[in-house]
Amino acid sequence: MRKAIVGVMGPGGGASNSDLQTAYELGQQIAEQGWILLTGGRNIGVMDAASRGAKQANGLTVGVLPGENHSDTSAAVDIPILTGMGNARNAINILTSDLVIACGIGAGTVSEVALALKANKAVILLNSEDSCSHFFEKLSDQSIFVVQSPEAAIAMAQKLLKANPIFL
Amino acid sequence: MRKAIVGVMGPGGGASNSDLQTAYELGQQIAEQGWILLTGGRNIGVMDAASRGAKQANGLTVGVLPGENHSDTSAAVDIPILTGMGNARNAINILTSDLVIACGIGAGTVSEVALALKANKAVILLNSEDSCSHFFEKLSDQSIFVVQSPEAAIAMAQKLLKANPIFL
Amino acid sequence: MRKAIVGVMGPGGGASNSDLQTAYELGQQIAEQGWILLTGGRNIGVMDAASRGAKQANGLTVGVLPGENHSDTSAAVDIPILTGMGNARNAINILTSDLVIACGIGAGTVSEVALALKANKAVILLNSEDSCSHFFEKLSDQSIFVVQSPEAAIAMAQKLLKANPIFL
Amino acid sequence: MRKAIVGVMGPGGGASNSDLQTAYELGQQIAEQGWILLTGGRNIGVMDAASRGAKQANGLTVGVLPGENHSDTSAAVDIPILTGMGNARNAINILTSDLVIACGIGAGTVSEVALALKANKAVILLNSEDSCSHFFEKLSDQSIFVVQSPEAAIAMAQKLLKANPIFL
Repeated sequence: MRKAIVGVMGPGGGASNSDLQTAYELGQQIAEQGWILLTGGRNIGVMDAASRGAKQANGLTVGVLPGENHSDTSAAVDIPILTGMGNARNAINILTSDLVIACGIGAGTVSEVALALKANKAVILLNSEDSCSHFFEKLSDQSIFVVQSPEAAIAMAQKLLKANPIFL
Repeated sequence: MRKAIVGVMGPGGGASNSDLQTAYELGQQIAEQGWILLTGGRNIGVMDAASRGAKQANGLTVGVLPGENHSDTSAAVDIPILTGMGNARNAINILTSDLVIACGIGAGTVSEVALALKANKAVILLNSEDSCSHFFEKLSDQSIFVVQSPEAAIAMAQKLLKANPIFL
Repeated sequence: MRKAIVGVMGPGGGASNSDLQTAYELGQQIAEQGWILLTGGRNIGVMDAASRGAKQANGLTVGVLPGENHSDTSAAVDIPILTGMGNARNAINILTSDLVIACGIGAGTVSEVALALKANKAVILLNSEDSCSHFFEKLSDQSIFVVQSPEAAIAMAQKLLKANPIFL
Repeated sequence: MRKAIVGVMGPGGGASNSDLQTAYELGQQIAEQGWILLTGGRNIGVMDAASRGAKQANGLTVGVLPGENHSDTSAAVDIPILTGMGNARNAINILTSDLVIACGIGAGTVSEVALALKANKAVILLNSEDSCSHFFEKLSDQSIFVVQSPEAAIAMAQKLLKANPIFL
């Protein structure tokens, strides 16, 4: 059976130090679970931090990039998928992830959480302000799971993946 | 000089009666301004209502569809663009629109407003609950314009298009 | 009933003078039939020439562009669709066209003819060398129609559109 | 340094027994080189055979799929990328591959070889009829390399990857 692919989405240039630290820990713990990490693949922000965390724990990292060459690919991405589609690639990130964790919030992340709800994918929100969490919970009370730490995100991810018919 | 393309985004199956009525009036008034209407192109919800309104006023309507055939194309769309890309086509709606008006809110609409902010496009919010308007204003205080009627949306659109270097 | 959308595909920078002249005449005659012209939308090669021909005959022109801004949009395109997807947009050109006419041949055009065969769309080949025509006829003996002049292309297009259930 | 990603493209339902056998051997030998195999990811034809060959040799396999769920994902794909974009995903296959090997020919494969030429990627043709090889050599005499066996394809791939600045 194939390994679960867990997407970690979050701000690029606008990521806070807390977002970066949390993303790094998420990446580590995703790798320790034996899951594959998927991000937006760029050498910046949450994408880069999560990928570096996963590599530190010998994980496998996939990056689905907006561009058509490797000028901004994170060095911590093992498998860079070059889409050449700009932010339309956000839809691919979501479809490919068995589960999505949003770490921090920016406009791109909001588009990804919304596309995940549209595709009936579970989304775990971490480092999200209350107003943002409430906004998404109101959009979908069944698919949004708000947590407060990387550990809680991983515990929730374990539960959700166990319930996913693909991994039964 | 080419005509302005104004995108009207909003819920499909989940549109309220108020969303549909407002979308119809928006479509009419966009056509009366001589602008081209762009929607998601399906035969349902805000997309269909806005397109019908525009045709009633002899406007030109473009629909950027998720599917690869015409099984769900609105009969009020003059130029159906078949993308075969599912919701990844939301990014095309945004890039192609010189200006975006969101009429009502659903998960797909949220993804489009977020992609518009990411692409530095102005977004006019109509029929949006306060919590939703505040959420987006917080994400971008420069690109979000909240209005309360189709007339106010058109007046704001006139002002924004006048300031757009493409139409100077 | 909506108007037929006829796609004209062909080389950009590599177009020959003959390709450009033929594309211009094709655009004119497509407009005279009351059909909508669809091209790749750039300000170069067959795309630009066909669009200019159609405008000269008061036609309506759609361009499905690879980029995400108007830096290379043909001035003869009424409705520029900005995909931001690079050459992945070739698939949209094909899906959206009710019928495809290839005028001249380059690598991009070959990808479009091949995608058209894959999507079961009829393709009319004009200004194609014998070896190229034979190559495509061998790939699909039912969907490729080789002609020698814009007039013959239009006559064939009339016949094919009449047989298309969408326009019955 | 990341591992090279070698794309193997070829017919799905229309693959010949020879195409399937060759694709299986290609997959094996790509894995033995320590390269990552990329295919179109479906459970059929050259995609499936190459992926099974690579897994038999303990390789890593990526599949870039047209659909938005796993209904037709090859069981031999470790990392299925769900694009939901239909054949527009062919452009992603090409951009992501450091090098493309076409094994057999169908309409989809022709579109991929053409997109590769457009993107200045080297393409190795295997199991291609003479008329097809000549057609592509005429389109681009610098990027097409015709070989007669999986072993020759791998030897050519070694040479081309060594010359690729990304892997210097």
